[in-house]
Amino acid sequence: MSKIVKQVEASNLNYVDSFGSKKDLKSKPARRFAILTCMDARLDPAKFAGLVEGDAHVIRNAGGRASEDAIRSLLISYKLLDTKEWFVVHHTGCGMEAVTNEEINEIFGIKTSSNINWLTFNDNKKSLVEDVLTLRNHPLVPKSIPIYGYIYNCSNGRLEEVQEATKVGQPK
Amino acid sequence: MSKIVKQVEASNLNYVDSFGSKKDLKSKPARRFAILTCMDARLDPAKFAGLVEGDAHVIRNAGGRASEDAIRSLLISYKLLDTKEWFVVHHTGCGMEAVTNEEINEIFGIKTSSNINWLTFNDNKKSLVEDVLTLRNHPLVPKSIPIYGYIYNCSNGRLEEVQEATKVGQPK
Repeated sequence: MSKIVKQVEASNLNYVDSFGSKKDLKSKPARRFAILTCMDARLDPAKFAGLVEGDAHVIRNAGGRASEDAIRSLLISYKLLDTKEWFVVHHTGCGMEAVTNEEINEIFGIKTSSNINWLTFNDNKKSLVEDVLTLRNHPLVPKSIPIYGYIYNCSNGRLEEVQEATKVGQPK
Repeated sequence: MSKIVKQVEASNLNYVDSFGSKKDLKSKPARRFAILTCMDARLDPAKFAGLVEGDAHVIRNAGGRASEDAIRSLLISYKLLDTKEWFVVHHTGCGMEAVTNEEINEIFGIKTSSNINWLTFNDNKKSLVEDVLTLRNHPLVPKSIPIYGYIYNCSNGRLEEVQEATKVGQPK
């Protein structure tokens, strides 16, 4: 058993010890919202947005992008589990902003004709607006759901709203 | 501004106030591992696995499935950001286990010929083994990375290892 596995299992036992009434939580998020954000290790959505267990769905991928899989998850979030508002949160210093699709293909030694779209970007605000728009315009996303766009600042922990993104994310 | 937005922004300001030395965190996860798990509101990976900001990548989607997007994220996690071990964590009472693809299509009123694969499953352990195998057999995933399979128990907070999944996830 690796050191990491041992540490994770030991931490988990501490969590189990103080689990208490969380056993009664429902699968529908109590506060009826979802956050789509990046997998980045520096981000803890529960901490930066004030969530406790049971509050909200959290979807995370490289970049916090509105990928097909993120859309699948958000659609299930609203239609099966009743969320009413969505946040899309990118962040400063994102690894996906530092590279291009071509560079990643090169790092992996694969041909650029590869069908993996790494979803890199070179302008954080623009990519956030793009992601909010992708969600807003998806045929299965109801027009009634507001979608907010934020950039999390890794140097101070602050969620900074990007007005242009929230604007295109408003209910129609 | 909605009640939820106000609450999230207020919680965030508290977080900013106590942010301290987290501004110096690096983008490479300090503990060099990644967790793929479900978006379920009841799960807080930082709490159940003992993570602090900067420790590990967390990838989340509906079901904690090894979707193409999760694979994209994990590949970036290891190749660009140096993670060395991966955990796949499903959980008891998952919404994706309660329904079929056809039922979700019906709920959305779309034809079953729709090209959305909702990634539902009817056997949690089996789907976990399947997801670990999908990662293990992916041509861009290095044979050296161990992949562990767990099911998080929502009734007591415990991470229960699924030996069969961890077994197929061993380095080759």
